[in-house]
Amino acid sequence: MAISPKTIGRLGLYRRTMQKMLADGREYVYSHEISNACSVTAAQVRRDLMTIRFTGSPERGYSIAGLLQSISDLLDDPEEQRVALVGVGNLGQALLNYFRGRRATLQVAAAFDVDPAKVGRVIAGTRTYPMQQIAAVFSKQSIGIAILTVPAAEAQAVATSVVQAGARALLNFTQVHLRLPRGVFVESIDFGVSLEKVAYFRQQGG
Amino acid sequence: MAISPKTIGRLGLYRRTMQKMLADGREYVYSHEISNACSVTAAQVRRDLMTIRFTGSPERGYSIAGLLQSISDLLDDPEEQRVALVGVGNLGQALLNYFRGRRATLQVAAAFDVDPAKVGRVIAGTRTYPMQQIAAVFSKQSIGIAILTVPAAEAQAVATSVVQAGARALLNFTQVHLRLPRGVFVESIDFGVSLEKVAYFRQQGG
Repeated sequence: MAISPKTIGRLGLYRRTMQKMLADGREYVYSHEISNACSVTAAQVRRDLMTIRFTGSPERGYSIAGLLQSISDLLDDPEEQRVALVGVGNLGQALLNYFRGRRATLQVAAAFDVDPAKVGRVIAGTRTYPMQQIAAVFSKQSIGIAILTVPAAEAQAVATSVVQAGARALLNFTQVHLRLPRGVFVESIDFGVSLEKVAYFRQQGG
Repeated sequence: MAISPKTIGRLGLYRRTMQKMLADGREYVYSHEISNACSVTAAQVRRDLMTIRFTGSPERGYSIAGLLQSISDLLDDPEEQRVALVGVGNLGQALLNYFRGRRATLQVAAAFDVDPAKVGRVIAGTRTYPMQQIAAVFSKQSIGIAILTVPAAEAQAVATSVVQAGARALLNFTQVHLRLPRGVFVESIDFGVSLEKVAYFRQQGG
């Protein structure tokens, strides 16, 4: 079953929302409730759940526990996936803290930086290595995912080296369009574009 | 002309890409090139440009300078928009650095934090105020946009207070689904969902 990156992103959002609903003691949810919480149309929610062949009843809606299980079966690898973060600046440290211990099967196993003051230290539970050890550490720790939080000028060189070291999926915070071999998945987060979007709707609304 | 948040986000991405192309000395661009650079289908690029009524020629493609101008006319408020950031932790500091001096008409004018060690200091060019001064500073500085980088437990209370203080658009990093009055625009960035998506495609590709 080939599912688009956008659908996968939305399913992750739905899961986040429903985990909160379950914690609040809810058992069933309607598509329009997921729609409201996730800023996605209700029709889109229903299409996404059809894609993963999850059905609800018109009276009660979707079973939250059942839907959480279906999404987790799809998204979560039963085997541990190991992640490295490259660039332990403010943003890198914020992400190390954020991801620390969050998911048993998705672990930030190593960090890398050029700064001798950071190398060798354990920051937010994660050991920091020098950049020169990317190939060795990725190989030894079977790391397949990299988070890039380096300055823009370093982004392409670092991306190339983590892919050579075995990374097959990147979370890219560098605002640089990376040129990488086919088959490497890149998800980019661009704070500038997000702020411009917010500013546009402030202007429209105000 | 009502344009959807998703289209606005993509137009911002296209602009980012074309600014680089222009800096590289390019004059014209085809939709499939924007498509490649932005991970959007070429058909979607053409639809978005039709939405803003920008046309190209089949031989040469779209004029980069012309398209940049059209997108900027749409996205950029001629008047300065003032932004506040609430929560000067690692992520907040990374964002203050990132946005510093980036756009003349979109300025982070103030930051807020609970930490007495941060309050009163200028961090990344931005003065940090105590949370109790949100109402006064938003009003005095005509701030209409807030970036939330506070802990999840504080998110709803802080969101409510910035909206009461005059914010009409929020960039939300807190992973909390905020309940706010209609007409307030919220763009949420969820690092966890992004990493899960990357992990899913690592698993599919690997």
